[in-house]
Amino acid sequence: MTDARIILTTVAVHETAMSIAQTLVQEKLAACVNVAPAVESIYWWQGKMDHSLEYVLTIKTAAGKVDALRERLLKLHPYEVPEFVVLAVESGSEAYLGWIRESVS
Amino acid sequence: MTDARIILTTVAVHETAMSIAQTLVQEKLAACVNVAPAVESIYWWQGKMDHSLEYVLTIKTAAGKVDALRERLLKLHPYEVPEFVVLAVESGSEAYLGWIRESVS
Amino acid sequence: MTDARIILTTVAVHETAMSIAQTLVQEKLAACVNVAPAVESIYWWQGKMDHSLEYVLTIKTAAGKVDALRERLLKLHPYEVPEFVVLAVESGSEAYLGWIRESVS
Repeated sequence: MTDARIILTTVAVHETAMSIAQTLVQEKLAACVNVAPAVESIYWWQGKMDHSLEYVLTIKTAAGKVDALRERLLKLHPYEVPEFVVLAVESGSEAYLGWIRESVS
Repeated sequence: MTDARIILTTVAVHETAMSIAQTLVQEKLAACVNVAPAVESIYWWQGKMDHSLEYVLTIKTAAGKVDALRERLLKLHPYEVPEFVVLAVESGSEAYLGWIRESVS
Repeated sequence: MTDARIILTTVAVHETAMSIAQTLVQEKLAACVNVAPAVESIYWWQGKMDHSLEYVLTIKTAAGKVDALRERLLKLHPYEVPEFVVLAVESGSEAYLGWIRESVS
């Protein structure tokens, strides 16, 4: 296992998505954030099925930054319960893993 | 490790993608499904290289629902061999992980 | 854990993305590659924040092919430090996992 992590979250408004991405990278909580074109989300919310467009943020960071990044994102994010899931990176290219570490140090 | 899982599958037709997503959420097999804009897929099929547009479904659920979800998806899906891969979620925000559990209970 | 792996990389030019995907599948290093519509990437590069469009390649392969695929991709890729992260697939449908193995054997 490496010390790199991929974090996923979703945001309803493109500007908000870009501003959250900008802040996370600016504050060296993330090395890189990809903001993908809107996805169609179907989900349960307060006992009813709901459907909306969301922008997925794929956040690349180091394991040591996950807690601080979560705190910061939960403050920045307009949702009551934002998606925040962390995937462990099993392996990668040494140069890229090094770049992630360096970018958030 | 958490009890949350991310499942990926792909579907060739948008309507089918949306209907599968709808059914999985409706039947409380998934808390949320994101249907992304079409990707270009290049792959091997029956000994030849092939190329087609597909819609990627990113399915968020609880580990305890994976088997039932797989059975249901394999019945709903028009492909002979649909993609069905499960990623374990290492950590996440407590509120979001709780929301996943609650949505599929 | 299964022997399937999902590898992510990003490429700035669509044609390059498709040609890399084609080569990896053609040379049986990958069973399937999805090339997604462009994402907006925000990242650190040489001490400055940068922002560009990139195409995300989601590569499905077998664990035994990861090293060879990394070597090949690093040669094909125009970046100095391409993204190359590997996610382990916890479980999946037997038929799909078998198709991955067969496609890269």
